[in-house]
Amino acid sequence: MRLDQTTLELHSRGRGSYDITGEVAACVSSAGVVTGLCQVFLQHTSASLMLCENADPQVRVDLETFMADLAPDGDRRLAHRTEGPDDMPAHIRAILTGASVQVPVAQGRLALGTWQGIYLWEHRTGAYRRRAVVTVWGE
Amino acid sequence: MRLDQTTLELHSRGRGSYDITGEVAACVSSAGVVTGLCQVFLQHTSASLMLCENADPQVRVDLETFMADLAPDGDRRLAHRTEGPDDMPAHIRAILTGASVQVPVAQGRLALGTWQGIYLWEHRTGAYRRRAVVTVWGE
Amino acid sequence: MRLDQTTLELHSRGRGSYDITGEVAACVSSAGVVTGLCQVFLQHTSASLMLCENADPQVRVDLETFMADLAPDGDRRLAHRTEGPDDMPAHIRAILTGASVQVPVAQGRLALGTWQGIYLWEHRTGAYRRRAVVTVWGE
Repeated sequence: MRLDQTTLELHSRGRGSYDITGEVAACVSSAGVVTGLCQVFLQHTSASLMLCENADPQVRVDLETFMADLAPDGDRRLAHRTEGPDDMPAHIRAILTGASVQVPVAQGRLALGTWQGIYLWEHRTGAYRRRAVVTVWGE
Repeated sequence: MRLDQTTLELHSRGRGSYDITGEVAACVSSAGVVTGLCQVFLQHTSASLMLCENADPQVRVDLETFMADLAPDGDRRLAHRTEGPDDMPAHIRAILTGASVQVPVAQGRLALGTWQGIYLWEHRTGAYRRRAVVTVWGE
Repeated sequence: MRLDQTTLELHSRGRGSYDITGEVAACVSSAGVVTGLCQVFLQHTSASLMLCENADPQVRVDLETFMADLAPDGDRRLAHRTEGPDDMPAHIRAILTGASVQVPVAQGRLALGTWQGIYLWEHRTGAYRRRAVVTVWGE
């Protein structure tokens, strides 16, 4: 069994989703694992990680539309506003969508479906540096 | 440490949830792992996997009711419609509920709670073939 | 490779979230794993586990407010009511937020971000005993 762990420094440019499949795939390659698993863990609570359709970018635009209605910025029901009107909605979005993704490794590569990509989903309106820990283990 | 990986071919018959606990349990048995973990990963973005109450089927009916109101088919806010009015709502449902489940293995079996089952949740209205990768590792 | 598995007995005191970071961290310490992963799995379908901001308790109050509007108790659309008006909303909340968390282990400790805590999120209004299986593996 092999185990490899790397920290990725990611840079968001405001609210939206960013394809990080390539960065994660590179960690799998350098780990030398043929069959196993890869976990990506985001060390933040106002951004998240998601597996999403990677063919039509409109899908991710529609996800923003959906979330903007579900957890609107400046929502008067929410009292945690010290960091701005987008902060508490960002926490809500992050909890609904998750801080980690786990993808099998097969034949030395991420065993993603044809239309699956791994995305950092920034929920704050500003630009942030985000850290993700990638752990790969297997044979 | 042992590690075993299998791909399950699942067949949905339209929107709804399908108990796959038996298929996953069979992978654990054949892996010969006594203590460890089992991951099930769905290679799709318009269906998901969930752990759900397995006693009263009404729970899963109510989940459909809830989701139908939260992310309704044909929602005019959403522009990704090339594959039909149920496609973008299916992506939303999948992202809110997740593409993988991870269950501990103890005493050679899935360490599920008494009322927990593993379900494929098909979010498209049509019937689809869905692939899930099951990875089991441990001692 | 080492692998260690422990069951935690948790006690909720009604709806709300409870910091269990210390209990999970103790499992990591006793496992003697330096680099690897830790999984916490809840054996229930009406409570969940979440990673949440641990600085301002108002965040978790706002999460309750959000969920109370999203999946209100006694919702007339929902028919699974034999265990009370809070039961089906609890299942919905649990499915939206997840039964497990996976956190990397680095330098012998949980590699959480500065503001991340691990919480048991009780969705039922009553007090319950909840069981969580903690599995730690790595080098």
